[in-house]
Amino acid sequence: MQRDNFLFITHRRPDGDTIGCASALSQALREQGKTAYMLFNPDITPRYAEFAEDYWAADEYVPDYIIAVDTASCQLFPTNADQYRGKISMCIDHHASNTLFCELVCLDGEVATCGEIVYEILLAISSNISAISAERLYVAISTDTGCFAFGNTTANTLRVASLLIEAGAPHKLLNKNLFRTKRRSRIELESMLDACIDYHFDGKVAIATITRDMIESSGAIEDDLDDIAAIPGSIEGVYIGITIREMSSVQDCKISVRSLPQYNSGAICAHFGGGGHRAAAGASIAKTVGEIKEELLVVLADVM
Amino acid sequence: MQRDNFLFITHRRPDGDTIGCASALSQALREQGKTAYMLFNPDITPRYAEFAEDYWAADEYVPDYIIAVDTASCQLFPTNADQYRGKISMCIDHHASNTLFCELVCLDGEVATCGEIVYEILLAISSNISAISAERLYVAISTDTGCFAFGNTTANTLRVASLLIEAGAPHKLLNKNLFRTKRRSRIELESMLDACIDYHFDGKVAIATITRDMIESSGAIEDDLDDIAAIPGSIEGVYIGITIREMSSVQDCKISVRSLPQYNSGAICAHFGGGGHRAAAGASIAKTVGEIKEELLVVLADVM
Repeated sequence: MQRDNFLFITHRRPDGDTIGCASALSQALREQGKTAYMLFNPDITPRYAEFAEDYWAADEYVPDYIIAVDTASCQLFPTNADQYRGKISMCIDHHASNTLFCELVCLDGEVATCGEIVYEILLAISSNISAISAERLYVAISTDTGCFAFGNTTANTLRVASLLIEAGAPHKLLNKNLFRTKRRSRIELESMLDACIDYHFDGKVAIATITRDMIESSGAIEDDLDDIAAIPGSIEGVYIGITIREMSSVQDCKISVRSLPQYNSGAICAHFGGGGHRAAAGASIAKTVGEIKEELLVVLADVM
Repeated sequence: MQRDNFLFITHRRPDGDTIGCASALSQALREQGKTAYMLFNPDITPRYAEFAEDYWAADEYVPDYIIAVDTASCQLFPTNADQYRGKISMCIDHHASNTLFCELVCLDGEVATCGEIVYEILLAISSNISAISAERLYVAISTDTGCFAFGNTTANTLRVASLLIEAGAPHKLLNKNLFRTKRRSRIELESMLDACIDYHFDGKVAIATITRDMIESSGAIEDDLDDIAAIPGSIEGVYIGITIREMSSVQDCKISVRSLPQYNSGAICAHFGGGGHRAAAGASIAKTVGEIKEELLVVLADVM
């Protein structure tokens, strides 16, 4: 039996890596005469929608192969992918924490981006990577590394990005749109956030607040909040950067903690029932910003 | 006669490319047993000082070879290099506008950064590029391309950066310090600048103001102003981004104009006696911010 019909599943709250990889694979398979679609991701944001829109599957599409991309576990599937749990043919991923939830797992936990793995797969499919596939993989690799500035970037990341540009990825346009353009609402939100940062413990801790009022008055959408939690931690002299964001009400907040290696973000968030990694962690807390700040300062006094 | 003593000249208001290239060359020549120094640059800022401090020449140093780096003309020499005009042995540069002011010119007007040229030179000097030289060239290449996000970045830029990381450039630390760290004063200045942006012509023009008060109250230094003029032009929907900065007095301003290819920044600045390129230009104007804004809107009405 010839298996021809592919369906790619991206992870919930999709980023450029999952969307870029799934659309590059869909594109490359179509160029080989195969039928390939992506399962619609209900969380897709305007930032990445254009890279996926040609590939969304119709509801009645019946795939032979279902491949999850950049997805460490079935728990990370978007809700409309529940029907495919247990039916995944293959998973392509770069998270060392992958739960190996299907038989065929193509996993490299060492690379910065899933895009670098998919690049090698595309080379195996065809020696010639098309300009469209190259564009999608450039989106994957550049967005997952903050345009090659994040700590996950490696020599291989830059090597592959260089080859994708040679294959026709329109990197100038992509860089302008993805990294050198901010929505007006983001600029306004950042201005408010920057103005309300307060410093503690000799400037080693910076705490920023994003209230519902700030979101509303700036008109910020979810894309505008992308990576905004990194701002307090990016200030010179700051070891621990914390962002407190009001969610559905003033009594429903989320904290994001980023720290230099000397400190453990995950341990700080564990005090609030949250978790994460040493460098970056988060927690959801049913308290007001003021109450959380007070509690944070007590917790931090122990470790500073 | 064995010529052994090298002196490298960097350009005034030095950036990472000129400092990184001169220090990489000095380092590589020292590793070959040569004597190599850089002429002290009185404009050096804290951002780049650490990469040059081991190479500044003593006043009494007498060089055999004097090499200008990343410098398109003698006009761009720092003031203390006047004594060397007409005595330059060689120039290594990537500006197509280079005035060919000495006999030996190593020029490639196509590459994004001088660092890419120096990389090839270091390979010719020795097949092994040391970690220190690699670090300096990574500084050169990454800062001149905004960590690979600016429009000048090419496949070659990324290829060379990848090889420099393999040669030992500590790119994670450099990226954190150069691209993911902001001084507190910069954050405060940006917050004020973001809050005062005004929009004209259906949001196609954004004008930001940096007053002397803003500089003073934020405590901003020159390094904090690095690339701040790019902010208005980076807003979604903005075709022309303008920054007006008060210099020595409220009657002494500098404008920076950035535009998308449809518009000509240089022509706009020419109205004020300034100049530059199509994409980026500037002018010094002996008027107040208010007067300049008024005049700008008249000039812009003609082209919008």
